[in-house]
Amino acid sequence: MTKGIILAIDAMGGDKGPVMTVEGTAIAAKRFPEARFLMFGKNQVLRPLIAQYKSLQDRAEIRHTSDVVEMEDKPSSAIRTGRNSSMGLAVKAVKEGEADVAISAGNTGALMGLAKITLRTMPGISRPALATILPALKRDVVMLDLGANVDCDEKNLVQFAIMGAAFSRTVLHQTLPQVALLNVGVEELKGSDSVKKAAKILKEANLPMQFEGFLEGDSIGIGDVDVVVTDGFTGNIAVKTAEGTAKLIAELLRRAFYRNFITRIGFLFAKGGLDWIRKHLDPNTHNGAVFLGLNGLVVKSHGSSSASGYAEAIQVAVEMHRNNIIELITEDLKNFSGDEAVTPALKE
Amino acid sequence: MTKGIILAIDAMGGDKGPVMTVEGTAIAAKRFPEARFLMFGKNQVLRPLIAQYKSLQDRAEIRHTSDVVEMEDKPSSAIRTGRNSSMGLAVKAVKEGEADVAISAGNTGALMGLAKITLRTMPGISRPALATILPALKRDVVMLDLGANVDCDEKNLVQFAIMGAAFSRTVLHQTLPQVALLNVGVEELKGSDSVKKAAKILKEANLPMQFEGFLEGDSIGIGDVDVVVTDGFTGNIAVKTAEGTAKLIAELLRRAFYRNFITRIGFLFAKGGLDWIRKHLDPNTHNGAVFLGLNGLVVKSHGSSSASGYAEAIQVAVEMHRNNIIELITEDLKNFSGDEAVTPALKE
Repeated sequence: MTKGIILAIDAMGGDKGPVMTVEGTAIAAKRFPEARFLMFGKNQVLRPLIAQYKSLQDRAEIRHTSDVVEMEDKPSSAIRTGRNSSMGLAVKAVKEGEADVAISAGNTGALMGLAKITLRTMPGISRPALATILPALKRDVVMLDLGANVDCDEKNLVQFAIMGAAFSRTVLHQTLPQVALLNVGVEELKGSDSVKKAAKILKEANLPMQFEGFLEGDSIGIGDVDVVVTDGFTGNIAVKTAEGTAKLIAELLRRAFYRNFITRIGFLFAKGGLDWIRKHLDPNTHNGAVFLGLNGLVVKSHGSSSASGYAEAIQVAVEMHRNNIIELITEDLKNFSGDEAVTPALKE
Repeated sequence: MTKGIILAIDAMGGDKGPVMTVEGTAIAAKRFPEARFLMFGKNQVLRPLIAQYKSLQDRAEIRHTSDVVEMEDKPSSAIRTGRNSSMGLAVKAVKEGEADVAISAGNTGALMGLAKITLRTMPGISRPALATILPALKRDVVMLDLGANVDCDEKNLVQFAIMGAAFSRTVLHQTLPQVALLNVGVEELKGSDSVKKAAKILKEANLPMQFEGFLEGDSIGIGDVDVVVTDGFTGNIAVKTAEGTAKLIAELLRRAFYRNFITRIGFLFAKGGLDWIRKHLDPNTHNGAVFLGLNGLVVKSHGSSSASGYAEAIQVAVEMHRNNIIELITEDLKNFSGDEAVTPALKE
């Protein structure tokens, strides 16, 4: 028998709100019969929505709150006033052991702030990181940090590598993930001080990963490794630049389609192929950014996620919990317990 | 009458070598009748190639050398031993006033190193930068630094903004370019210290540019501004990530084409539209990365450039020289001459 799991759902979060989150939860409920759901949000809104789905009967419990963190709220104000919001209470349920993972499609900065202040950073980790799964040619790739930390030293980067590898092991089921540091060249002499020092530490470390050294930006899309590690400034900009490039090409394809009668006919025939590409690159099929390095699990779904995308984010949550990601990270950090440069917090 | 210009061509550089560089120079010679060319490289190789092109007769002079910097040479060894190579001598011709601009499709790191050591950094600039022109939806965009400097402070970023704006004015003919700093968010509180400080300085400065504040990675491809400023680490990774994403989508398109009989027919009809996209994104139509901030002009063509792409790089060289980019930069730096935090070198 599979171990049960309780998921705390911020049912009010996301551009499409409760209609999407409840439908997404219902899809996940079918996929994971052992799961139960705490639905945080407005009673009068959620009750009729939940009643529509057979898979949620007797498995979804509403926890009423009328407070909501809005998409445009500043993280700082959300931290001050959002503790009783659907988002804040979902995170709190994890903190208090009522739920195993919290899921939200709401304001990223607010969720990161509330998660950090409520769950606190785990021993051995200096700073938590935001990780996601990106589509690439050869395989799906884990990338972190995506913006939680703008200034990172080698210690942070090494910890990100450990957390990213654990994420790849638990969610993508890579037993010995290939890990690389994002850099401006692949030679040992290239790059910033922190990147070079982190490479040296990872090369000598005995960790459940295959450290592949440096990787350049153009290799992310190919999928040459399982985990790409970088600081939050570079990671945020790289991922957004990739998104922007994909949008640019999609727009150019649209314009190419409307160019003349012949191209229009051509694209009608090519549509099957183009739909296949769209599906391959669709963020909904790779949904679920996660905050790693906290004393508890929080998954961030895309704000514009569809219901099926939301179910993917819940799947990420289930996989992380099932495969004990926090224990894996704790174990790996112990390998460094003698190395003060890497895990000072373990000694506190 | 247009002012004459003398171009120093590293005729041995580039993946395709002299066949490509000589043909590219010949194309540029037709476009710029006032230009003359010093062709650095092996006499016995270059002479028969040059003889093939009418446009080069009496306008291309061979400067023989049998030394060549190879693509795989390390920049450090190229700097030590490459001074008498075709690349080293082309740069030296600029230093000694024999030529107005040097052009090479060779090893980027070696060219950067040789250019820096031969031409030296111009007064008022702490560090030179590598800039390029990227295709975007609304317009062509200048982006810098692309890897010359991995660690940058606010002073460097402000100087990059000044140089990038001058590049936009001279080569893309934007009279008052819109300039933005790449960041992880558009709000004033976001980002690293250096980015926030640079924004404050640029906001208060009186410069021939329109400072637009921060820009996120996904806006680069849209073309919301004329100049995108960032440190060399982030810039290198962002541009390479964009290239990688474009390649990923191109490969997916290829696979979509071969999916079945119907998609093949579709893509044959759609070919006109797809070729138009390919042309829009082709690096050859936006060829020519430039080193800004030196006492002399050096243009780097893509290593894999075609002859017509090489002619584009020569065009960038001609435009920079014609429109006196170095004088423009010097003038703008004077606006800061009282501000020690930004232009210390001017006072030396």
